Amino acid sequence: MKRPLIVQKFGGTSVGSVERIHSVAEHVIRAKQTGNQVVVVVSAMSGETNRLVELAKQVDKVPNVRELDVLLSAGEQISMALLSMTLSKLGHAAISLTGGQARIMTNNNHNNATISHIDTSVIDEHLAQDKIVIVAGFQGINEVGDITTLGRGGSDTTAVTLAGVLNAQECQIFTDVDGVYSCDPRVVKNAQKLDSIDFPTMHEMAHKGAKVLHLPCVAYAWQNHVPLRVLSSFDAGEGTLVAGKEAKPGICGLAIQKQVVSLRICEEHVDVVDKQKQMLGVEESHWVTDSTYSHLLVKADCRDKLKLVIEDKIVTEQDVSLLTLVGSNAAEQASQYQQLLNLSDISVLHFCEDTHSITLVLEPGAIDKAANVLHDNYIIASGSVEREEKQVHLG
Amino acid sequence: MKRPLIVQKFGGTSVGSVERIHSVAEHVIRAKQTGNQVVVVVSAMSGETNRLVELAKQVDKVPNVRELDVLLSAGEQISMALLSMTLSKLGHAAISLTGGQARIMTNNNHNNATISHIDTSVIDEHLAQDKIVIVAGFQGINEVGDITTLGRGGSDTTAVTLAGVLNAQECQIFTDVDGVYSCDPRVVKNAQKLDSIDFPTMHEMAHKGAKVLHLPCVAYAWQNHVPLRVLSSFDAGEGTLVAGKEAKPGICGLAIQKQVVSLRICEEHVDVVDKQKQMLGVEESHWVTDSTYSHLLVKADCRDKLKLVIEDKIVTEQDVSLLTLVGSNAAEQASQYQQLLNLSDISVLHFCEDTHSITLVLEPGAIDKAANVLHDNYIIASGSVEREEKQVHLG
Repeated sequence: MKRPLIVQKFGGTSVGSVERIHSVAEHVIRAKQTGNQVVVVVSAMSGETNRLVELAKQVDKVPNVRELDVLLSAGEQISMALLSMTLSKLGHAAISLTGGQARIMTNNNHNNATISHIDTSVIDEHLAQDKIVIVAGFQGINEVGDITTLGRGGSDTTAVTLAGVLNAQECQIFTDVDGVYSCDPRVVKNAQKLDSIDFPTMHEMAHKGAKVLHLPCVAYAWQNHVPLRVLSSFDAGEGTLVAGKEAKPGICGLAIQKQVVSLRICEEHVDVVDKQKQMLGVEESHWVTDSTYSHLLVKADCRDKLKLVIEDKIVTEQDVSLLTLVGSNAAEQASQYQQLLNLSDISVLHFCEDTHSITLVLEPGAIDKAANVLHDNYIIASGSVEREEKQVHLG
Repeated sequence: MKRPLIVQKFGGTSVGSVERIHSVAEHVIRAKQTGNQVVVVVSAMSGETNRLVELAKQVDKVPNVRELDVLLSAGEQISMALLSMTLSKLGHAAISLTGGQARIMTNNNHNNATISHIDTSVIDEHLAQDKIVIVAGFQGINEVGDITTLGRGGSDTTAVTLAGVLNAQECQIFTDVDGVYSCDPRVVKNAQKLDSIDFPTMHEMAHKGAKVLHLPCVAYAWQNHVPLRVLSSFDAGEGTLVAGKEAKPGICGLAIQKQVVSLRICEEHVDVVDKQKQMLGVEESHWVTDSTYSHLLVKADCRDKLKLVIEDKIVTEQDVSLLTLVGSNAAEQASQYQQLLNLSDISVLHFCEDTHSITLVLEPGAIDKAANVLHDNYIIASGSVEREEKQVHLG
């Protein structure tokens, strides 16, 4: 009988040194020894991609895109070889494969390619020989055999896509935090690690600023029924399981976006600006509307790019922060949030409703306090976080 | 009509920084602009291979050989991408190819593979599109698509083999010296840069210690009628052309080998020791014989490896240096060398004759003086160095 397959992905910090790669090997061996087949996806060692980008920029501010991919893909090639050597040294048969060797086929969109399909025959063959298969994250090849890279979050994409096509039991994303939290623990002191979270909520959290998982990774896993697990590569623990298609009732989490700018646009220009914004590839933007104006909320680092094109259509601009409460009925309680925040002298500039969430536009100085107030009231006090010991205390 | 093709090879020092890669690009562009098709072979940036080897050794003193090749091959991938970007930035169409992409097929001897054949269709196609083609030196793939590396001097081998199969007009080896010298200029102050040298002499020089070209590179070029040119990547100049199958008469050059050990072996054990030496892969060794004993001359860094196996068959050992005079009739004048060196209080421990050379076994402290004495007498005084201005003076 075929043993269950686990895909494990380790990011740059997790493989940042030979010592850390040794810890990664121990995670991998544990998964193998508990009876699984294991496919490992690795990023470049932390710092390595930056080093390579820096070299490229010394050559050309806008380097040739094909050659930038050739250059960057060397990063994962180094980390995958070191991990395979480590496993080999520890007595476990392992083999590393570049994106091309693993037959990860992409379109030709260099530096931001999309996986078109994966021919799993090579991986299958090595798994059948009981080897641990290590695949370079972030990279593939196009149809003429040129190396491509997948852009930001690419290794997560590699891992979850492999998990999908290999019909893995679970895709484990190892990172430097021990799971998904109810809110960013650097901001909210009572933020709780979640034992599990459903896909609609995780997707909305990622969409509205939670950084623990990249949005396309969550979307792919959700669509392809791949259970995800977020774990720490530095600590033991079960992490957070992302699974389930039904959103739970109530507020499940809060997402924070700082460094956002609100651009006030005359109503008559909204369509033009919206098109130009899309043409510029400005992602993660939202429109909110009040009685006379529409406000385009974009990340502050897109501001300059956007202003080159639409400066004449901007009435005013304002730095803001966004706090999103995620939950199927989150939008129903807008007036309550407002009242609660008023007690802390925080005013909400705008509300921005979505199907499974509501986003509060706040002044940058108010975001941390607002997040703590709403988190403590809607997550802690309501006991919505699923933790067994907590349920006992609160039950 | 098809334009002539030049293969240019740049070593690690030549591509050691972004600035140096810029100089390399200028050499390449000059060759292109004078009407040639150009294929460029690059090594890893100097220091990069050592950095990667160091990482591997931190993992395992004897790393898995397949994975070591995966690791090391990332080095050339980085330098070739940076060179291609540079050419692109300077307005010249260029494309970089890994060993696998360039279809350099090797046997399965990881870390020391041999090129079995090169399918030039990919390179031909890019050349036909008027691109400069940059190929990673030192690497290929075996028949199952695993990355292999060629071992020491591998980039030279890549270059000369490509020059052979592509029917190149010339294979230019760019290095940190401006050509082949009549003797090592760090030892012999009157050493002369040669404008040209024939293959039998160059081969013997390389075989007996001249480091400027690797022996297999010279052997391949000789057998396959590929003219070689040794040039400096840092200076202009015509370098040294290696061409011609006929050795010129007289002493053409001197080769020096330091850090050699002479192991005195009883005559009865010579056959056994010779076999064991071969089994251990000890290269560049010679036997010399006197009335009662045979002496095995090996590089000092092979001493320990060899002694593990044959210690009981060694009568005495002695550190020595070797000075080889290369020329078709070099061996005829052994007694003259002896006399000349006696005038400088240098005694020759042994002579070791070969078809086109004679090697003098000397005490280590005597090698530099001996080299200068014999060089000045047989190269300078005889005017055997082919330099036009010199011929005028001496004519």
